[in-house]
Amino acid sequence: MKRVYLDNNATTMVDPKVKEAMEPFWCEMYGNPNSLHQFGIETRQHLRAALERLYAGIGADDADDLVVNGCASEGNNTVLQGIYHETIRRGRKNHIITTSVEHPSMRATCHFLETLGVRVTYLPVNDRGLINADELKAHLSDETALVSIMWANNETGMIFPIAKLADIAHERGALFHTDAVQAIGKIEVNARKADVDYLTFSGHKFHAPKGVGGLFIKNGAPKPRLIYGGEHMAGLRAGTVNVPLAVGMGLAMELANDGLEDKSKEMRRLKDKLEDALLSIKDVSVVGERDLRVSNTILASIRGVEGESLLWDLNKNGVAASTGSACSSVDLEANPILTAIGADKELAHTALRLSLSRFTSEEEIDYAIAVILRAIERLRAISVSYDSKG
Amino acid sequence: MKRVYLDNNATTMVDPKVKEAMEPFWCEMYGNPNSLHQFGIETRQHLRAALERLYAGIGADDADDLVVNGCASEGNNTVLQGIYHETIRRGRKNHIITTSVEHPSMRATCHFLETLGVRVTYLPVNDRGLINADELKAHLSDETALVSIMWANNETGMIFPIAKLADIAHERGALFHTDAVQAIGKIEVNARKADVDYLTFSGHKFHAPKGVGGLFIKNGAPKPRLIYGGEHMAGLRAGTVNVPLAVGMGLAMELANDGLEDKSKEMRRLKDKLEDALLSIKDVSVVGERDLRVSNTILASIRGVEGESLLWDLNKNGVAASTGSACSSVDLEANPILTAIGADKELAHTALRLSLSRFTSEEEIDYAIAVILRAIERLRAISVSYDSKG
Repeated sequence: MKRVYLDNNATTMVDPKVKEAMEPFWCEMYGNPNSLHQFGIETRQHLRAALERLYAGIGADDADDLVVNGCASEGNNTVLQGIYHETIRRGRKNHIITTSVEHPSMRATCHFLETLGVRVTYLPVNDRGLINADELKAHLSDETALVSIMWANNETGMIFPIAKLADIAHERGALFHTDAVQAIGKIEVNARKADVDYLTFSGHKFHAPKGVGGLFIKNGAPKPRLIYGGEHMAGLRAGTVNVPLAVGMGLAMELANDGLEDKSKEMRRLKDKLEDALLSIKDVSVVGERDLRVSNTILASIRGVEGESLLWDLNKNGVAASTGSACSSVDLEANPILTAIGADKELAHTALRLSLSRFTSEEEIDYAIAVILRAIERLRAISVSYDSKG
Repeated sequence: MKRVYLDNNATTMVDPKVKEAMEPFWCEMYGNPNSLHQFGIETRQHLRAALERLYAGIGADDADDLVVNGCASEGNNTVLQGIYHETIRRGRKNHIITTSVEHPSMRATCHFLETLGVRVTYLPVNDRGLINADELKAHLSDETALVSIMWANNETGMIFPIAKLADIAHERGALFHTDAVQAIGKIEVNARKADVDYLTFSGHKFHAPKGVGGLFIKNGAPKPRLIYGGEHMAGLRAGTVNVPLAVGMGLAMELANDGLEDKSKEMRRLKDKLEDALLSIKDVSVVGERDLRVSNTILASIRGVEGESLLWDLNKNGVAASTGSACSSVDLEANPILTAIGADKELAHTALRLSLSRFTSEEEIDYAIAVILRAIERLRAISVSYDSKG
């Protein structure tokens, strides 16, 4: 059976070139980069080259820190828990501002910090998935230690104006963090141009392997830590540095940015084709304006079609999609983004997220369109609540 | 040039069989195991099989939790910081007991908890690298929330009597954690038989890749968390589960325990040959009794020979060793274990750690013996402080 993978916001295939680049590091160049012998020296060199690619990839300055860690969930926890210990616990600021549509690793960690007495403001999004900069301004105070807003939303693909939002935060003396997981490989991500203090990303969202990510810390910003221990990563993160995966992520970053504009344009063309096909059916809507979204993501709600039923139908025909973030997908809950943007309860259960990658072909999109349209027709026909003539 | 790797306590080569087992998970079976489609379902099956191997490997019960994480540094941080939040911060217990010879990820995290007001007792070791069970008893009180003692020491290879120590801790109502990083693949590690509440390990110390580890949590024990977020790993650790590396670690665990007794005996035979050769030179001593050490580790001090100079000499001749833990090796400090067991300052700078693996051959050991003996002779001849006739 044909298999079409349209769940690239959950995780991506490792680029075969990345797999190849990691090859020598499993059974040959396996030294600990902290070791003083040849096995360590040779891996250190490759680690340095990988770090250079990562610095270049996100526009970091030599003086900034870039910590290779396990994933963006770890990175997000590091920023939030680290700022709690570095800034909030030691000073007089006791307030964090974030949005209601962040990744679960942000939401859950904010809830945890609330149990420690931190005040957290969750900015709402409007029905187009946007946050309001004036609302951010209104909530900022001298008490605000940190503002954390994702660069692109994992479910809608909506891009938030990070440079502008960071500017607003800085004006009131707050630090600014962005979870850039869903932006890399889709739009230009430049930490210095956007002037953020912290930026987190995960390799497996841009064709590096799972289990490796990065945390950018601007020179001069307080240095948050989560995993204490040895002097790895300039003392910022203990644990033997994962050389093979760091090498893989370095190359993946370079490949993600190489010809980004053209690749993104082609992804967008295929995404728009799929989106147009969906919108050609009645009672289907897609969240967020096209121009304000990254090139690969569609979050549709399809009245009368329960999300999980649709997924299973698509899956039987080889099309892999999701109802939203895989980080909460086993729960069969209403889509939290649709809920956040004010969809009614019924509609929040009709979410379909389709996310492409640069490896998605036109043939795959054509196949997916046929499968999806057939499935919607079939499920609506047997729906007790949906009146197709209504 | 011949290359002999005798730094397996720092990190190990990935077993070629483990590398092969991970192959299909990079570019073919790359689904997120939380996803509801075929790509997710197939990886879930392999993840489950890997977890079964890990449960079996450390003697865990079905009802226990086994969290796949990034490494033992993360695991150790999770236990310490998690118990702080779960038990210490919420209750009246405010005391942790550990030893003075734990891994830096334990030491540094204990120091961090001290800044939060936790009282930490660091049990000393005697000149044979042993801790005193009576001393543990004497320090335990109703205030003690957690006792954490490593199973085998990373520098000396000394094995601590974990079952007995856990028993002593439990008698006073304290939880017990062991860092088993250096024990797996060398001795039987059975969390249930030893009756520990928490046990941490790292894949890359037993021929799995870097960047993956495990945390055992006994059924009924408080569940410590460090990385908050989605429902991955039963809600105990956020971040997309690293399927390829978990699969690799599952197989590596099975291979480590397969014929363990014979493999360990052969490692010990080669280790003893190397140790005998070292001890045949005058003014060389090895820390700890042979019978109380794991089968692969020698920590020698070689009077008149500065550790780093020796390393460089060995390295030039293709032999990779260390002066102690790679987690602090870039610092060129005195060996902390030799310091802890009361060596004078000069001797603490003469440490040589040699650590074998099941892949170490007799030919390699013979080569290493020749190289090491020559290097010691050479360095002593040019030493200003060492009188070879003295």
